[in-house]
Amino acid sequence: MALINYSDLNDILESILLKTGFTKEESVLTAKIFADSTADGYHSHGVNRFPVFLKTITDGYVKLGEQPERELALGSFERWNGKLAPGPLTAHFCMNRTIELAKESGMGCVALQNGSHWMRGGSYGWQAADAGCIAMCFTNTMPNMPSWGAKEANTGNNPLIMAVPSENGHIVLDMSLSQFSYGKMEKYAMDGKDLPFDGGFNSEGEHTKNPSDILGTKRLFPTGYWKGSGMSILVDLLVTILSSGKSTAQIGELEAEYGLSQVFICFDSAQMNDGSKHKALVDEIINHITSAMPEQEGRTIEFPGSQTKKRRVEHMKNGIPINDNVWEEILRLSNQ
Amino acid sequence: MALINYSDLNDILESILLKTGFTKEESVLTAKIFADSTADGYHSHGVNRFPVFLKTITDGYVKLGEQPERELALGSFERWNGKLAPGPLTAHFCMNRTIELAKESGMGCVALQNGSHWMRGGSYGWQAADAGCIAMCFTNTMPNMPSWGAKEANTGNNPLIMAVPSENGHIVLDMSLSQFSYGKMEKYAMDGKDLPFDGGFNSEGEHTKNPSDILGTKRLFPTGYWKGSGMSILVDLLVTILSSGKSTAQIGELEAEYGLSQVFICFDSAQMNDGSKHKALVDEIINHITSAMPEQEGRTIEFPGSQTKKRRVEHMKNGIPINDNVWEEILRLSNQ
Repeated sequence: MALINYSDLNDILESILLKTGFTKEESVLTAKIFADSTADGYHSHGVNRFPVFLKTITDGYVKLGEQPERELALGSFERWNGKLAPGPLTAHFCMNRTIELAKESGMGCVALQNGSHWMRGGSYGWQAADAGCIAMCFTNTMPNMPSWGAKEANTGNNPLIMAVPSENGHIVLDMSLSQFSYGKMEKYAMDGKDLPFDGGFNSEGEHTKNPSDILGTKRLFPTGYWKGSGMSILVDLLVTILSSGKSTAQIGELEAEYGLSQVFICFDSAQMNDGSKHKALVDEIINHITSAMPEQEGRTIEFPGSQTKKRRVEHMKNGIPINDNVWEEILRLSNQ
Repeated sequence: MALINYSDLNDILESILLKTGFTKEESVLTAKIFADSTADGYHSHGVNRFPVFLKTITDGYVKLGEQPERELALGSFERWNGKLAPGPLTAHFCMNRTIELAKESGMGCVALQNGSHWMRGGSYGWQAADAGCIAMCFTNTMPNMPSWGAKEANTGNNPLIMAVPSENGHIVLDMSLSQFSYGKMEKYAMDGKDLPFDGGFNSEGEHTKNPSDILGTKRLFPTGYWKGSGMSILVDLLVTILSSGKSTAQIGELEAEYGLSQVFICFDSAQMNDGSKHKALVDEIINHITSAMPEQEGRTIEFPGSQTKKRRVEHMKNGIPINDNVWEEILRLSNQ
């Protein structure tokens, strides 16, 4: 395991992006999004995925030089066409525009068609919260999960993000709608461990904690069985209709996962409550959560974003642990 | 089991409400909401709950004669004070106002403080979809579920609703954020059956399918463990901040569950796509879901709202089965 300094990671990613054909400004922002995700501990959508991200560009599924274009404006709702530009740039742009709309009139929404994979959705939740906004974001994916009662992947694990700004560290939920992500199951399989809970079906159609069995059948459980299944269908409907873009079904007909539909919603917290009232409301909820009796004596009670913040502080101070093979690949890309 | 005609149920509820002090107009709407929920098969939040609903009025937690008042208007966002008026009336009013805002400018949002229990949240999803709107609704509750890692109830099972209009039957998701509702666990316990999946902890701190054990510990699982836990915290933050109302923590300090915070969001589907495009997008998603290979041969694949519609058609044709004790209680209230 290499231990890499944040700014070294950021600089090397930026230099690779420049060489790949990103503009200076695009390289700076894209490198920051990947480096931040890694510093926050989301390696699977940070540095580990960076080589795959570059490959979607050389393969032509993600297009450099394209800018989002507005297709529709209805008050504080707008629809944009992402034109398959790099996902993190487009999602960051859309969240920025959503924040602007919310600052203008309390609330804003941007729906994006022809988006690309946004990598870590939480990035845009933290972005909104940094700007003082309460946010929700949704994306669809290729079909990668069976809906409840189905045997084959007919829906996506369509992630959703919810974010609330707080002086003491934003509260940011970033979750896919499968019980375990493919990345997490691969990690457990690599470590030779069982999942902590049943995560899907084995080839006999039985529920299992064995991650390799589930990776084999691709029959993973939705979050909370029928509940996450229902949510995944509704998230796909929401993003597809608002963006007038591609559904999970349509993405499944393509040769790779591209042209996603995404939705960004913001509320300007400063227009909802004055600062001290906002702080009081947030603190009361979070204190009520964390001051409850823990399940295991001596353990802290966590909430969405609390562990992210701890990891970030630790990694900024002591360096970010990165898998040796991943780091060698980054160095190779840098020296190419 | 009594088999009751929809209009008989509706008429008797209406007459009881009139006697209780509801105006004619309020009685008609409230009776319809309760009768519709029952016809759709949601007895626990329909006729079965009607006596409890009346008791919240006689106990003074729900106030007759109050009307919602607007507290804040920011473009297509509005905040209203429900003044503890009957929940179904206020939620119906707020969803109507949200629909109006969406028809004006594409999107609308109403946040409600001092709301009362809205009974079946799905009612307002169907209401929005009937008006051609895509909707999301959220409410908080009293603390009734431990967050992940906590041993005592420090959050609510804060239901959420998502709805999409469709000619072939709206797609409406109506779910609480516990894996099983208290109502469902009571039903399984009454029938002497185990839950189909682990639903919480027993008194030894072990995961269990035994509903009575979970009702005893009140340590029920959130939907998908840590995922539903995170969502419940974020839903509470969302509704509390937008409404500037009571959080689950604050509601927990009251002697009963009242003064809830709720949020209603709508998008006008007619402004998002023309009718034939909307139909094509929805049909493609739903066909992709239902045409997959079923887990069990010969079974249909369902989606949110599909079973509701089947129950409604069956009950409108052949009458609604209602528990004998419940029906006797309704008759008693009617003859009082």
